[in-house]
Amino acid sequence: MRVRLDLAYDGAGFSGWAPQPGRRTVAGVLGGALSTVLRATEPVVVVDGCRQRVAPRRLVVAGRTDAGVHARGQVAHLDVPVEQLDRLRTRDGASGPPVLLRRLAGILPDDIVVHAARTAPPGFDARFSPLSRRYAYRVCDGRHDPLTRSFVLWHRGGLNVAAMAEAARGLVGLHDFAAYAKARPEATTVRTLLRFDWQRPDDGPDAGLVVAQVEADAFCHSMVRSLVGACLSVGEGRRDPGWPTQVLASRCRAAAVAPAHGLTLEQVVYPPDDRLAVRAGQTRARRDPIPPQ
Amino acid sequence: MRVRLDLAYDGAGFSGWAPQPGRRTVAGVLGGALSTVLRATEPVVVVDGCRQRVAPRRLVVAGRTDAGVHARGQVAHLDVPVEQLDRLRTRDGASGPPVLLRRLAGILPDDIVVHAARTAPPGFDARFSPLSRRYAYRVCDGRHDPLTRSFVLWHRGGLNVAAMAEAARGLVGLHDFAAYAKARPEATTVRTLLRFDWQRPDDGPDAGLVVAQVEADAFCHSMVRSLVGACLSVGEGRRDPGWPTQVLASRCRAAAVAPAHGLTLEQVVYPPDDRLAVRAGQTRARRDPIPPQ
Repeated sequence: MRVRLDLAYDGAGFSGWAPQPGRRTVAGVLGGALSTVLRATEPVVVVDGCRQRVAPRRLVVAGRTDAGVHARGQVAHLDVPVEQLDRLRTRDGASGPPVLLRRLAGILPDDIVVHAARTAPPGFDARFSPLSRRYAYRVCDGRHDPLTRSFVLWHRGGLNVAAMAEAARGLVGLHDFAAYAKARPEATTVRTLLRFDWQRPDDGPDAGLVVAQVEADAFCHSMVRSLVGACLSVGEGRRDPGWPTQVLASRCRAAAVAPAHGLTLEQVVYPPDDRLAVRAGQTRARRDPIPPQ
Repeated sequence: MRVRLDLAYDGAGFSGWAPQPGRRTVAGVLGGALSTVLRATEPVVVVDGCRQRVAPRRLVVAGRTDAGVHARGQVAHLDVPVEQLDRLRTRDGASGPPVLLRRLAGILPDDIVVHAARTAPPGFDARFSPLSRRYAYRVCDGRHDPLTRSFVLWHRGGLNVAAMAEAARGLVGLHDFAAYAKARPEATTVRTLLRFDWQRPDDGPDAGLVVAQVEADAFCHSMVRSLVGACLSVGEGRRDPGWPTQVLASRCRAAAVAPAHGLTLEQVVYPPDDRLAVRAGQTRARRDPIPPQ
């Protein structure tokens, strides 16, 4: 049975999402916790004379965040034999994913919070079903607040937010984002940037900050931070608002990558349940690179 | 010359404000940084054959925060010989406190930010001149956000904010807060609690949290956290809204002290400049305990 997990984490203490030997990663810590919770429900098998249980759980995630990047609306899935979930029971009669959620809360460190665990609808795939991912990038160019410094980039000197917003508008749409991606052989860098805006909110949780909202069907490696880096150059007055679009057209990397700690994965948008499988199939089919224009 | 400093810090990395041997404290780190900046302007003196400069600066502060307590609106002062301030100069013609501010920014760690440094008006005393101090205490009883966990208390289960607000109202006014203070021989525990309310803001930076605003002429040691602890018992339904007032009248400690990391000194209010010296004189005069009623 497939279980969907909704989670949040402070990226500061992690070498990113993906498991790496000898490093503390989100998938490593969460996978280990899932193994601990589920192991209790697994039969012990004897291999080469040793009693052992099944290996750590393989997690599939919507956004493979880099080292230092945070998440408030991350989504992952894992497949668990139904009889294992059924064996998760409490005295008050609860069973299955709600018990999994409760047990995880008891053992996870306080820089990861799993907000929800539920049986995924048919066809759900955390990685391939999403319609889009939305990230926020937060910058403070005024009075620095040490309490929020772990997720807000401090910038010396005021930023021209109108110029940054103008620069961002030029990048929205279907493009080859090779100039804003770390090269990976054989991987396409064509993406649809659905939203990219910069604002200085007067109210709400980000009041007074300079905040980018960046949404796309999917992102290339380090793409959001490269887009943000280009706009920061514009906001500082070192580049014209048209420069990021010129960089895009050149397909050559030119913009600095903004620091990881200002970036947070805020939301992953999935289609209605009856479109999950179709969407996953569409995404899996390799995107064709668009020809030079 | 007296210099007023306005500052903010993340209390997590400090054993409180007050200097303590072998511990990292706000006054220790800030005093050391001030010494470094000002030392360059001091003549070297030879004592017992050793070249040395003047000792670390003595800082006087508005709110001596405990270990783990944060500040966004802390105020301190220090006295500096005028010729030392005059010797702080930059090539672009700036001098005095603005240069002090710039130099401090260059050497302070990122968990302390000095927002302003200026010549204090006559009669100003960071500790004795304030009309009031205002603290905020932040609690999350819903969806836990790991990004703000360093300054928000996580609470399991929903809190009854209306009951907490009712409880808090009964404590406002001039009282002997012995039941909500760590005993100190010879020190009065009579204070005027000017404001104590609990809200669940719909909007603004604290949207969705449960937040106390606590303001008094001055606070006894651990008083805010004791008041908060009493109200949390009410919010959980373990005590009636009238209980904190009964505790107050008993003058015996009964409420748990809430954890430090939810507490932030938000603001110190000073009178107009022409009232600073009079106010300081009034505060210095020992408060008389009020007789049993």
